[in-house]
Amino acid sequence: MTAPVRLYHYWRSSSAWRVRWALAIKGLAFESTIVDLAAGEQLGAEQRARNPIAHVPTLEIDGLTLSESVAIIEYLEDTRPTPALYPSGAGPRARARQVVELINSGIQPLQNLTVLRQHSGDPAGQKAWAAHFNQRGMMALEATLVQLGAHFPSGPFALGDRLTVADLYLVPQVYSARRFGVDLTPYPRVLAAEAAALASPHAASALPENQPGAPRS
Amino acid sequence: MTAPVRLYHYWRSSSAWRVRWALAIKGLAFESTIVDLAAGEQLGAEQRARNPIAHVPTLEIDGLTLSESVAIIEYLEDTRPTPALYPSGAGPRARARQVVELINSGIQPLQNLTVLRQHSGDPAGQKAWAAHFNQRGMMALEATLVQLGAHFPSGPFALGDRLTVADLYLVPQVYSARRFGVDLTPYPRVLAAEAAALASPHAASALPENQPGAPRS
Repeated sequence: MTAPVRLYHYWRSSSAWRVRWALAIKGLAFESTIVDLAAGEQLGAEQRARNPIAHVPTLEIDGLTLSESVAIIEYLEDTRPTPALYPSGAGPRARARQVVELINSGIQPLQNLTVLRQHSGDPAGQKAWAAHFNQRGMMALEATLVQLGAHFPSGPFALGDRLTVADLYLVPQVYSARRFGVDLTPYPRVLAAEAAALASPHAASALPENQPGAPRS
Repeated sequence: MTAPVRLYHYWRSSSAWRVRWALAIKGLAFESTIVDLAAGEQLGAEQRARNPIAHVPTLEIDGLTLSESVAIIEYLEDTRPTPALYPSGAGPRARARQVVELINSGIQPLQNLTVLRQHSGDPAGQKAWAAHFNQRGMMALEATLVQLGAHFPSGPFALGDRLTVADLYLVPQVYSARRFGVDLTPYPRVLAAEAAALASPHAASALPENQPGAPRS
């Protein structure tokens, strides 16, 4: 009997959202343990034992305990290659990973709640900081998608005609940018990718508002 | 005739250091274009055309222009698999990528010069911020290496008995932590990995002090 897949996550964590979405696309059901970031549960001994940097998500799968969304999603692709989340060919894969890292290391870490609190105790100061780095990031993302578009079959997704790992990073980051008040109208390529990805199969189950613990609207 | 490999880099960029080291291990000679981060050259039109987020490194190779150290090093591994920088097996590879991302997204972006300047105009305030996130990161890195050690053959490197991509991220980050005044004595596992990696073949050519533009000591 196989142990169940278990995800330690939180409804509003953008890193957890990416992994939920990848699991849904790969057809992997999972059990949830909620780590309440707003209440600081990620800083407690239990989550630190799973992941010493005190972030979510952590995934238990195949007898492994894995953290970091990139490591988890690459693992899912390595072990469950279809449906593919990465393009085929080393060059296209590198371009997909460039978009992933532009978001994963170039935007998201800078607007993590821990970082906002380190910058300022004032909510307005926190929001201005987060808006700055999201806006800078969206500008770079728009330009990057336009550049890379020449190398993929044309289409609305981040890398053209089909959903890839790049979309799994783009959509949660756009959600954050919007939450921090960034005007997204200058980034039509980004918005087109977001719309296409959100309309794709499996998008709904991963959405923040569909997770345990999310506020009822 | 093959076009030369060209790296756009800067002596003190930790992200560029990782890529120089990977190129050396893979036996790839490269030509250099220096992008002077201290002078703000990464913000100019030329580097933005290569990489819209205005970071180094960028690598021109095989007719591709690639940015983001993770995307570049994964590409080198995909196209030049020996000597291997990643462990074999999906589980060990996931663990290597977890260490890489702990540093690449969990530490380095938070102490990037652009971020320090956004936080404070005061050099002491900048240093305190950088020290905070490096110290937090070293604590998490130490605990992560101790945890993962159980899953690799024992040895001094980040993942045990041989040099991997994890060391290429660890060493430049330890260099930064030291530069910002972090006391490293509580992290013996990290220091052992650093020492082993620095003593390995190909380490020297990638060092910051051996790059064009580095100050003469």
